Amino acid sequence: MTMPTDLLQRLTGLVGPTGVVTDGSDLEPYAVDWRKLFPGKPACVVRPSSTEQVAGIVQVCREAGVAIVPQGGNTGLAGGAVPDASGTQVVLSLNRMGAIRHVDPVGLTIEAEAGCILKVAQDAAAADGRLLPISLAAEGSATIGGVVAANAGGVNVLRYGMTRSLVLGLEVVLPDGTVANGLRRLRKDNAGYDWKQLFIGSEGTLGIVTAAVLRLLPRPKHSVTALISVADPPAALRLLALSQDELGDQISAFELISATSMQLVAKHAGLKAPIAEGEWFVLIEAAASLAGLREAADTMLGAAFEQEIALDGVIAESVAQAAQLWALREHVTESEAREGRSVKHDVSVPLTEVPRFLSEAGNALAAGAPGTRVNAFGHLGDGNIHYNILVGPDHDAGVVNRIVHDVVAAFGGSISAEHGIGQYRVGELARYRASTEMNLARAIKRALDPDNRLNPGKVLLP
Amino acid sequence: MTMPTDLLQRLTGLVGPTGVVTDGSDLEPYAVDWRKLFPGKPACVVRPSSTEQVAGIVQVCREAGVAIVPQGGNTGLAGGAVPDASGTQVVLSLNRMGAIRHVDPVGLTIEAEAGCILKVAQDAAAADGRLLPISLAAEGSATIGGVVAANAGGVNVLRYGMTRSLVLGLEVVLPDGTVANGLRRLRKDNAGYDWKQLFIGSEGTLGIVTAAVLRLLPRPKHSVTALISVADPPAALRLLALSQDELGDQISAFELISATSMQLVAKHAGLKAPIAEGEWFVLIEAAASLAGLREAADTMLGAAFEQEIALDGVIAESVAQAAQLWALREHVTESEAREGRSVKHDVSVPLTEVPRFLSEAGNALAAGAPGTRVNAFGHLGDGNIHYNILVGPDHDAGVVNRIVHDVVAAFGGSISAEHGIGQYRVGELARYRASTEMNLARAIKRALDPDNRLNPGKVLLP
Repeated sequence: MTMPTDLLQRLTGLVGPTGVVTDGSDLEPYAVDWRKLFPGKPACVVRPSSTEQVAGIVQVCREAGVAIVPQGGNTGLAGGAVPDASGTQVVLSLNRMGAIRHVDPVGLTIEAEAGCILKVAQDAAAADGRLLPISLAAEGSATIGGVVAANAGGVNVLRYGMTRSLVLGLEVVLPDGTVANGLRRLRKDNAGYDWKQLFIGSEGTLGIVTAAVLRLLPRPKHSVTALISVADPPAALRLLALSQDELGDQISAFELISATSMQLVAKHAGLKAPIAEGEWFVLIEAAASLAGLREAADTMLGAAFEQEIALDGVIAESVAQAAQLWALREHVTESEAREGRSVKHDVSVPLTEVPRFLSEAGNALAAGAPGTRVNAFGHLGDGNIHYNILVGPDHDAGVVNRIVHDVVAAFGGSISAEHGIGQYRVGELARYRASTEMNLARAIKRALDPDNRLNPGKVLLP
Repeated sequence: MTMPTDLLQRLTGLVGPTGVVTDGSDLEPYAVDWRKLFPGKPACVVRPSSTEQVAGIVQVCREAGVAIVPQGGNTGLAGGAVPDASGTQVVLSLNRMGAIRHVDPVGLTIEAEAGCILKVAQDAAAADGRLLPISLAAEGSATIGGVVAANAGGVNVLRYGMTRSLVLGLEVVLPDGTVANGLRRLRKDNAGYDWKQLFIGSEGTLGIVTAAVLRLLPRPKHSVTALISVADPPAALRLLALSQDELGDQISAFELISATSMQLVAKHAGLKAPIAEGEWFVLIEAAASLAGLREAADTMLGAAFEQEIALDGVIAESVAQAAQLWALREHVTESEAREGRSVKHDVSVPLTEVPRFLSEAGNALAAGAPGTRVNAFGHLGDGNIHYNILVGPDHDAGVVNRIVHDVVAAFGGSISAEHGIGQYRVGELARYRASTEMNLARAIKRALDPDNRLNPGKVLLP
């Protein structure tokens, strides 16, 4: 370990001996992401229990010229929260700062510390009859600070937006060790620059989120889940338009599942859609406080049959049946892993371009990476497709990435719809974003973190 | 006029002779805000017709060391879009860039140039059966660029958020004359810093918005409007909780109107509430695509009577009656003006603190500015109160401001909930925001506009 002894002493002085982790096996959970794709080697891990301690750690590391990697639940998919392999970076874990400070069921706000587990915050809102709509597979481990720093997406984005749209207030420790306290519980605040926006989605490269005020919503009383098969992606778009007409803004999920995805789920998870075969499937979820939701869903499905958009379809008659329909969607990733090696993409295009994107990306792969198979599924209602490619041992992941991302770029799309850039896509981003945008990002980074001490190497290179 | 002749020539060369205004009376509409509160004196007005021309103007002015004041519909309430009185600042009006480039009714996006009138964009969305929910009194003159630069609020914020939450993509000319093109029509994009957030709500001090992609929503089919009288502000909060329970997230307005406001409307506009007198009134608007809205509203009102929250109340039985209820709210400002001199405040506090705020601000005024009368009304559902004070000729507006804003600050509130800072509140902001936050704002300004050439003197002082 290359860490100076006096720095370790100063950190221990700030957070106490139990707040510093230096031992090899204890370091392991902080050193690598949960998928074990980005192994790193921290100088040590510091676990503060207050914002003041976070500020103190930042000041001490700054004086020592040591870089800090902030970490929440370490559930990210882009390697944004783990250190590099140099053994010189200090991991600052927020996992001892987990308090929920406040829930206001009428003002519809919740205030929580950065280390609070997302599920714990969801449950606190639910206990007061309200909804914290951020929901994702890792919600049992992901933290509020990580969710904010990553601008997390998830299954409710179509209706409630990304995490950004739910952040009302933020407390951030800046790279110079000062604390910017914007923990206002205000639904409207147009007084000066909304600086907190800089820290949402910047993956800990500009500041360390220590606490947040999030917006809650009334909890819908009724929900409806439907699975419908269609002939092709354009038909799925016509179904989306119908759903918008009948269900309005009460649709929370509009998921596209390819026949390939369904076949993988049948093969590896033993689950089968309870409707006739189709080339494509759409899973729709809607929820409302008003009665009339089921009737609107029936109207939508009826019209979809009448207009020959739906080949077959079913609306769940019970919570158990809704769960069975969702299980089909939820088992796609796992079934893909069992099938073999795959190269994943988390891309978005303007949603009405999804059919053309699927067609052109398929053609480009057939030409440039023959022998690959496409496993496409995802959030059609958001224009966000998990366009995963099943490959053989000889296919080059970089080549496959390049083929897919070039098509994404041609459609004005994004190479990271919800997972972020981290260290995983940092080179790709520089390739696809215009230099004006990259220069703007670097100007922001330089203004806030001129010495590049906060999560260096993530999101953008110097 | 102190403007260099060669600058004028270069500007004319860029935009043509009809694109430059130099004559006294022609300058007038650009020189002062519509309320005539902030008179200024431009060196000239330049009216580009393309983003390239905007970039050219910024480059030319930069070389000449001349400051630029971007201007949209000039409907702002904080003097943010008019020049100072020096006669040296160039007003850059976007009013020749008014095109709607694209409406996607299924992808739910609209792309418009900065000078497009808000109402024109609303109508374009409506023509495709969709809703652009930004709605405010000045919508017939306000422009998309101005609405974005000001992060405009309005009557639908409770349901759809401020303008920020509707911006998907932005094109901005930076202070160095380069063009940052982020006109992506993506609902999800987590690839790198979301730099566009910096320009939303920064009132033209960091860049000039030239075009935007905004999010649309399905247009609700049903609506309901109710007017209910209650004994006091805590009862209004209990009514809000009941409304959230019954109507969910389909409430678009929850407006509080004081008895004083109603009396002013009766006196000066001859309008009277069709329900029994009360100390406070609540106007509720909800809209939905689902049937069942009216039944839910009836349930809500029934429960409000049963729980002795409502003193009296009515649900509009027709569009005409709904308009009559809204007219009461809409005539408050005008009636206040007819009553005499007033000192206005656009403040927000955590919404469950509104009752205590009203009580403490009232006490503070009675002690510190005796003889004043409070005319309070506004967006209770957003915690945003227009806390206007009727004053006599001898009351000092600055003293009244200070008294009110000190109470706002004590509640962790904002001195500008929706109107922005402009030049109007620039001194007040520096007083009430913590130095860490002001330093952060100045660091952002320096990084993007180091020579302070873009809308200097607005939002923050150097």
